Amino acid sequence: MTPAILTINAGSSSIKFALFETGGGGSAGPRAVMRGSIDDTGEAPSLAIAGEPEPVAIDAGGAGERRLETLFGALFEVVADRLAGHRLVAVGHRIVHGGTRFGAPAVVDEDVLSALERLTPLAPLHQPRGLEPIREMRRLRPELVQVACFDTAFHRHLAPPVARYGLPRHFEDEGIRKYGFHGLSYEFIAGRLAAIAPDLVAGRTVVAHLGSGASLCAMKGGRSVDTTMGFSALDGLVMSTRSGAVDPGVLLYLLSVHRMDAAGLEDLLYHRSGLLGVSGISGDVRKLIESGDVRAEEALDLYAFRAAREAAAMANSLEGFDGLVFTGGVGEHAAKVRAAICRRLAWLGVEIDPEANAAGSGSLVISTGESRVRVLVVPTDEEHVIARHVLTCMAERT
Amino acid sequence: MTPAILTINAGSSSIKFALFETGGGGSAGPRAVMRGSIDDTGEAPSLAIAGEPEPVAIDAGGAGERRLETLFGALFEVVADRLAGHRLVAVGHRIVHGGTRFGAPAVVDEDVLSALERLTPLAPLHQPRGLEPIREMRRLRPELVQVACFDTAFHRHLAPPVARYGLPRHFEDEGIRKYGFHGLSYEFIAGRLAAIAPDLVAGRTVVAHLGSGASLCAMKGGRSVDTTMGFSALDGLVMSTRSGAVDPGVLLYLLSVHRMDAAGLEDLLYHRSGLLGVSGISGDVRKLIESGDVRAEEALDLYAFRAAREAAAMANSLEGFDGLVFTGGVGEHAAKVRAAICRRLAWLGVEIDPEANAAGSGSLVISTGESRVRVLVVPTDEEHVIARHVLTCMAERT
Repeated sequence: MTPAILTINAGSSSIKFALFETGGGGSAGPRAVMRGSIDDTGEAPSLAIAGEPEPVAIDAGGAGERRLETLFGALFEVVADRLAGHRLVAVGHRIVHGGTRFGAPAVVDEDVLSALERLTPLAPLHQPRGLEPIREMRRLRPELVQVACFDTAFHRHLAPPVARYGLPRHFEDEGIRKYGFHGLSYEFIAGRLAAIAPDLVAGRTVVAHLGSGASLCAMKGGRSVDTTMGFSALDGLVMSTRSGAVDPGVLLYLLSVHRMDAAGLEDLLYHRSGLLGVSGISGDVRKLIESGDVRAEEALDLYAFRAAREAAAMANSLEGFDGLVFTGGVGEHAAKVRAAICRRLAWLGVEIDPEANAAGSGSLVISTGESRVRVLVVPTDEEHVIARHVLTCMAERT
Repeated sequence: MTPAILTINAGSSSIKFALFETGGGGSAGPRAVMRGSIDDTGEAPSLAIAGEPEPVAIDAGGAGERRLETLFGALFEVVADRLAGHRLVAVGHRIVHGGTRFGAPAVVDEDVLSALERLTPLAPLHQPRGLEPIREMRRLRPELVQVACFDTAFHRHLAPPVARYGLPRHFEDEGIRKYGFHGLSYEFIAGRLAAIAPDLVAGRTVVAHLGSGASLCAMKGGRSVDTTMGFSALDGLVMSTRSGAVDPGVLLYLLSVHRMDAAGLEDLLYHRSGLLGVSGISGDVRKLIESGDVRAEEALDLYAFRAAREAAAMANSLEGFDGLVFTGGVGEHAAKVRAAICRRLAWLGVEIDPEANAAGSGSLVISTGESRVRVLVVPTDEEHVIARHVLTCMAERT
C-alpha cells in the first residue's frame, strides 16, 4: 500500500485538512484526494468536505478538554473511509512560528514540541493553535509521524537591515527581529512561478498574499528578501480584523490615556481593527464590496492604499520589480481590490487589462502587453506544500 | 522704532532662540540679527550666541521652579543689548502639536493656551516643552505678543487614506490620525523651492528632514500630501534615539513578556532606541561615521535603508517624484548618509554626483545631469518661518 498524508492547518475559526495520496516515489508529488474543514466555532462543531453538499455535525457532547479528541476522532473516521488502497503514515501541520531554530520542516518529537511551545510568546495567539493538534494526535495516534511546517521558514534568509528594528541591540539578541509569515503560501507560489514564469523566479517579484491575514513578500531568485509582516503577524498591511502597521505612539496613547492593558490592546489590534474596525461593518472583503456604504468604500480604499504603499517598499528592497503576483482568498477572487492596488502602482509601470482582471481566478496573467510589470493571479495551496514537506521528511528518515 | 521679533524653539536638550529685525513693511521679510541657544542640561545652564566665542554661564542658583524665569531673564538682557533702534514686540514659539483646531499660527491668549495644553496627551513629551516658555513669558513680559507656530500645521490637508489608521472608527473621531511634524521646516523648504526650483514646487518632491528627529514629507504643489511621522513624532524613520516604525506586536511582547509599562515603553522608544540603541555607541551621526565600529556601520545602514524604504512609500503617495531635498542637521551635513540613501534609490532614477555631494552644504544640486530625480541640499530655517508667521499675525491684528 502506498502511503497517504493528512495535512492540518489550524486557523482562528476553523481547522482545514487535506488528504494526499503519494505515488510512492518522490518524483510524482502528492495528490489531494480530499479537502475539507472542521468548523469549531459555536456549540455544535461540524466537518465539511469540499465537493460534498452538507457538513456533518460532530457530536462533541459537553466534551470540554476532550473536545479536540472528539473532533480528530471524527476526522480520522472520515479519512479511514477514503484511504482505499493507501495507508495513512504521517500528518503535516502548519505551524506559525519556527523561531531562528527551525528553518526547515521538522519531524516532531518531545524535544521539538517543547522548543516550539517555548516560541509561544513570539506568537501568543497563533502558536498554541498550531501545536494543540500535534500534541493531541501524538496521543491519539502515536504510530503516525507528525511533521511541523513553518510559516517563518521561507523567510529564514532575511538579514539586517531588513530584519532589524531600531531598538537596543540586546532585544535583537533575544529574538526581537523580523521573521515574516505566510511562508508556506509564498513557497508554493515560488514553486509555481518556476513552472509557469521561470523568468520571474530569476527576476524580482512582489507576491501579495491577501487573505484574512495579509502580507507581501519581496522575492528574488525564489527567496524572500523582505516581507511586510515582522516579528509578529500584526505588522504591515491592513487585514480583515488586524490593524497592520500603527504608529507606536498610538499604542503609548492607548496605554496611558485609555488605560488599556496588553490583553486589551492585543484584542483591539488583532480582532477589532483592520477592515472591520474602519468600516464598522465587516472584515470580509466580499461583504464590503457589496455593501455600498461609504465607510465600506473607505475601508477598501485604505486597504488598497496600504498594499500599494508597501508594494513600493518591497520594490525598494528588490531595487525594482518585474512581477506582481496576487494570491490568497482576496488576492485570487477580489478583482476590484486587485484593480485598486494596481491603479495605485501605475507610476511603477503596473498596467492591468480590465477584462483579464475581471475574468476571475482562472486567468493567469492580468497585465497588458505594455505593462512594465507582469501581473499574475496564482491560486495558492499551503496544504500541498505541507504534504511535499512531509514526503521529504519521510524520505530523509528512511 | 521698527519692531523686532524673538523666536523660541524649545527642544529636548536646548532652547534655540533668534532675534529678527523687520523692515517695518511686510515685503522685506524679517532679518536675523542674532541666533543662539540656551543649554539647560546639567547643573549650570549657559547661553551661547552664534559667532561669539564663549557661552555665558547663567546663574540659576537653586532656582527650582524659578529656573525658567532666570533663563529667560538672562535671555531678555542679551536681547535688550542688541535691540539698537528696534523695539521687541512679539515672541514666536515653535509648538509641536496644533491638533485639528490650529491649522495656522495663533496669537496666544488664555483660551488658546488651555486648548494647546489639552493636546498634551497627543505629544506628552514635546507639547509641555513648547508651552512652558509661552506661559512663563506671558507672566514675565505681558506686553509682548506671544505667537504659537505649529509643526503639524503644514500637514493640515492630509486626508484619508493617508491620514487614517486601520483602527475602529471611533478612535479617529477622538483624534487618532496622522498629523505629521517638522512642518515649520517643510514650510521653509517649500518657500525656498519656490525661489530656487519653481518647477519642483509644481512637481512632486520628497523632502527629507533629517535631524535628531527625522521624517520625510511628500510635497506636491507646495503642500504636504504624506509624511512618515504620524499621530506622534515616533513613527517612520529610525532617528537619533527614537525607534521609528516598529511592529505593534513588538510592543505587545514587551508589555506582556517583559512586563514593561507605558512609561517604560515611552522611555525605551523615545530615548534609548534608534541609532543609539542599534549602535550601542551614540545617537549622533557624526560620531557613528567617525567610529569605525561595525555596529556603528550597521546602525547607519539601517538608517539609510529605512529612509530609502519610506522615500519609496512617499513617492507612491505622489505617484512618482521629480525632486529629493535633504535638509536638517544630518541632511545638510552628512554627505555619507545622503550617498547611502541615494544609492538605495538608484532604481527610481536617483543618481548623485559624488563630488557635488561631498562638497558640503554649500552645494545646492548634488544630482548628475542624467538623474531622473533632481537631488538638492537646502539648509532649513525654522526660526525664519516662525518670525514670518509672527509678522503676519501682527499685521492681521492691526
